[in-house]
This record gives sequence, C-alpha cells and structure tokens, in this order.
Amino acid sequence: MKNICSLLPLEYPLIQAGMVWVSGGKLAAASANAGILGVIGAGSMRPDLLEEHIHKAKKFTRHPERLAVNVPLLYEKTKEQLELSLNLGIRTFITSAGSPKTYTSWLKGEGAKVIHVVSSPEFALKSEAAGCDAIIAEGFEAGGHNGREEITTLTLIPQVVDSVRIPVIAAGGIGDGRAIAAVMCLGAQGAQLGTRFVATIESSAHSNFKQAVINSNSTSTMLAMKKYVPVRLYKNKFFEDVKRLEDHGATKEELEKLLGHGRARKGMLEGDMTEGEIEIGQIAGLIKDIPSVEALVKRLIQEQRQSLPSGYFF
Amino acid sequence: MKNICSLLPLEYPLIQAGMVWVSGGKLAAASANAGILGVIGAGSMRPDLLEEHIHKAKKFTRHPERLAVNVPLLYEKTKEQLELSLNLGIRTFITSAGSPKTYTSWLKGEGAKVIHVVSSPEFALKSEAAGCDAIIAEGFEAGGHNGREEITTLTLIPQVVDSVRIPVIAAGGIGDGRAIAAVMCLGAQGAQLGTRFVATIESSAHSNFKQAVINSNSTSTMLAMKKYVPVRLYKNKFFEDVKRLEDHGATKEELEKLLGHGRARKGMLEGDMTEGEIEIGQIAGLIKDIPSVEALVKRLIQEQRQSLPSGYFF
Repeated sequence: MKNICSLLPLEYPLIQAGMVWVSGGKLAAASANAGILGVIGAGSMRPDLLEEHIHKAKKFTRHPERLAVNVPLLYEKTKEQLELSLNLGIRTFITSAGSPKTYTSWLKGEGAKVIHVVSSPEFALKSEAAGCDAIIAEGFEAGGHNGREEITTLTLIPQVVDSVRIPVIAAGGIGDGRAIAAVMCLGAQGAQLGTRFVATIESSAHSNFKQAVINSNSTSTMLAMKKYVPVRLYKNKFFEDVKRLEDHGATKEELEKLLGHGRARKGMLEGDMTEGEIEIGQIAGLIKDIPSVEALVKRLIQEQRQSLPSGYFF
Repeated sequence: MKNICSLLPLEYPLIQAGMVWVSGGKLAAASANAGILGVIGAGSMRPDLLEEHIHKAKKFTRHPERLAVNVPLLYEKTKEQLELSLNLGIRTFITSAGSPKTYTSWLKGEGAKVIHVVSSPEFALKSEAAGCDAIIAEGFEAGGHNGREEITTLTLIPQVVDSVRIPVIAAGGIGDGRAIAAVMCLGAQGAQLGTRFVATIESSAHSNFKQAVINSNSTSTMLAMKKYVPVRLYKNKFFEDVKRLEDHGATKEELEKLLGHGRARKGMLEGDMTEGEIEIGQIAGLIKDIPSVEALVKRLIQEQRQSLPSGYFF
C-alpha cells in the first residue's frame, strides 16, 4: 500500500495536527487509539508542561508508537523539548518554522522519524536533502501560521509530489473524507487534519472556540499579518483591528504591538472570542459537529471510501 | 454517468475556460473538436469582434453544439453580445461578474443552457434560485478576477456541492488529470481549466505570455488589487508597481489610476511582459509545454484515469 502506513506504525494514513493550545495529551491519545498519528503540539508548551502531556498521552493510549510531538523550531527551548520527548520514548517528530537541517540528522541518529512541514516545493527539496523521512505540504487554506506565497493545497501537492521522492502528506483545507480522497488523487500519501480536530470532544480548545468552528461559514476566516508572520484567523474583533491597521499600510512593528503577548492563549484556550487570537483553517465552514475522535476517524474513513461514485472517472 | 455530459453535449466533462484576449474562435473550435466545451471569452470583445469569432469557431469545428460564449455581465454591450450569440446558434452561456437573475430566464426561454460562475456557496444558492442549469465554482487559485473571500477550490467545492442540487463544475488550480480526479472526489461533476489552455498552440495568447506560463514556478503569481477588483497576476514589473502602492495603503482610486486603460491587452495579447497586466492562475508552475488542444485533452483524460493507483483508498 503506497501510503504513509508503510513509514509510520498507523492503521490509517492520517495525522491529527499538532496545534497550539488545542492538541494536548488527551487529544493525541484519542487519535492514536483511533488508528492515526496523535500529535502533541509543543509550540505553546514549556518543557515541564510538554513532559506532563507526553505522560498523559502515554497513560491514555494502548498505542504509544502512534504518538508524535510537533516542535516549531523557533523557540529557545527547542532542543530541550526534543531531548525530553526522546527520553520519554517519542520516535516521531514533526518539525516546522525553521531549517530542517538543524536537528534532522541528530533525531534520525536517535532512531526517530522526522517529518518537516513546508509550504512550497522549494522547501520540500531542502527537507529531502536534510534527510527528512517525509514532508507535510500545507496549503494557504490551513489555519495558523502559513507560507508567504499563498500556494493552495490543490496546486501545492502535485508540484511537491513531482519535486521529491520522499512521501508527501497533504495539509490545509481537509475536513472530511472527500478531501482525503482528493489529495490522494493528487499524489499525497497521507493527510493531516487540524481544524477538524479542534471540534472534537477530546481537544483542549475552549468550548467557545469549538462553537466558533461549527458556527463558521465559508467566509469566516482570512489570512492576515502578512508583513509580520502570516496567520489565518477567525474574523472576530481582534481580526478586524488587525485588518484596519493593515488597510492603512501598517508596519511590522505596529502589527507586533497590536498582537502583544498571550493573545493566542486568551482566544483558543481561555475562550475570549472578542480580543483573543483564534487560529483556524478555511475548512471550518464545512464542520458542523463536535464528535469524539473515535467516531470522527471512523466517519472520515467511510467518507473517503465512498467518495468515488461509479462513473466519476471517464 | 453523474457528470456534466448528461447536461451538455460533450464527450468529456471538461470546459476550456473563456479568457480575455486568449480564447477566441480558434481555441474554442479546437476544444469542441477534442470533445470538451469550447468557450469564446467575450469579455474583451466588442459585438462585431465576437460575431467574427463565433463565425470562425463554427467554421473550424465539426461540433458547433459544443461551443459556448462566456459573457461577464458588467459591460454595457452585454445584451447585444447575448442576442447576437443566440442569433448565431450558440445555446450554452457561461455568465459571470453580475447577478444571475438578469438574463437567465430569458436565455432559458430561448432554449439555452446557462452556467453561472461563483466564488462562494452563497452565490451558488442565488444562481440556483435564478434558474441556472449548473454552476462553475472557482477558487482563489484561479487566474484573472477572483472572489474577495479568498476561498480555495479545495474548501469551496464540497461546500457548494452540499448547498445546491444543480451540477457543480470546479475551477481554479486545475492543470492536469490528477486535479480533475481530485475535484471529482470532492463532488464536482466537471472541471474548467483556464491557464492550462493559455499554453496551447491554438490559444490567442501572445507567445511571450505562453512562455511565461511554462517558465513559471509555484510562486510566480499573486492575488492583487483587493481594494479595486481582486485579480491574480503574474509577478512582473506591473505587479510590483501595484504591490508597492498596496503596501503603503493605496486607495481604490490610486490603483485604478495605475491600471489605466489597455493594460490587459498590452500584456496578454501584445506580449509586453513588463508593463502589461498578465492574468494567470497559480497552477502555471505545473505547466511545462505548449501542446495542441487535441493532444492536451487526450493527456488530461489519460492522467485522470491513472490518478488512482491501487491501494490509495483504505
């Protein structure tokens, strides 16, 4: 079977994305139990909190081999996060927001698999050259931080697939089984879903955030802060404040000042849907319920199997 | 067969998009001969020129029933364009950039099929209510004029498919058979390709424009002029001039002044790749040759048939 189940010890070639303030040990354990890669998002965690979440995930899953940690390579504690994860038995890492050269050789020497997140064919090639085992290619429609070139998943995946020989996992805009089938047709060997897992029982997102996802429509999100670090946001008051500044040609410094500290935690974990920063994918408009992870994964598999009615291929 | 071949007299459920300065009678005839819908783009044509191109298309095709005219509903000559097309035997119309209510009932009364172009589920519903026979749902990655909400094809198609009962044709970001298969998995019943047909022998694009398409990479285009009329452009000097103005918070009037008159003709038809406006889709990066339309359509069909390696569905 030509999918990432030949690379990772998974039942289905799906990844529950690591997401700041959303994907802790509880969500990762539920995903691993459901047969997919359960990812703890270390981006929002100090090392002691990451340790706590890895312990929790291991406690609640029968499949610790299906656990992974997502580590953005931009914080000063990155090495410490990676070392403690290795010490606790984690052998799959998703790295992003930095050079794949920095830690890949060392992690692979420790027996780990390394998957780097990219937003262009150019960075896919760099990740392959750095020795990564696979790539997550993430399109413009994804939630959270995003490539500057605005390459969408539909145009990104085939171009990345044509550029590298290592497996490509598609991310951005995938909310149901139809989209999983679609990215497989494009040549992806797996799919990563983020926003869809925000709206699950086991996610750590504040219930206000979960409700915002299921109340969203197709126009509820927008990429913003392109002059600072591009991020796809839910259109709340904070977004409107950003937008107003940007419409008048705001500088990077002005945007940084508005963002301040703790905005993301305030929104996504504490549920302040007015002043908080809510990172969310464009596919939110398709999401209409808050199932358990187990029920969701079963439904995704069923949907992708049914996504090819007879007569569709001509 | 659940695709648009049950609605339109086509061999394959594909549409060669109507494109200003690119899709005249020659391209439309070649597309009709190849088994797909051949569309004359009336957007850049005065009525007498449109008449000339319809005559040319009819002269060069054995399948006049596969010819259509794309009419943006924003020019003063719209009614005249539609009337002369009807008089010359055209019975398939693609309308865009206006309300589907204005002409749909009248055109259907004349025995024509009407397909309206939309960029959101909301406008898809309005088109269905207006009596349109089908919808073209076009994503953010498409070339030329574009929705303000930046909804990508991957997230747009399933949401439109879930909203309406009439057939949905996907557009934006489709450059090969893999993407055709992908949008069919999302629930589309056909696909419209634009930029891919710019780089064909029969298109009227200037050879410099065709070369720009095949020299493009994944980052060669960007959506611009959001405060005026959003349009996806090739990144040339003209684009950089627009970008510089926008970075400093340019108003709609300043953008309009820079655009001036004849920029699109200068770029796409006359081949001025410096000062001309080049409307182009993000999928340009995938396109590497300038085949005949006949060879291209054969290849697209073959690619979409092969896009589903065994074992992909799990």
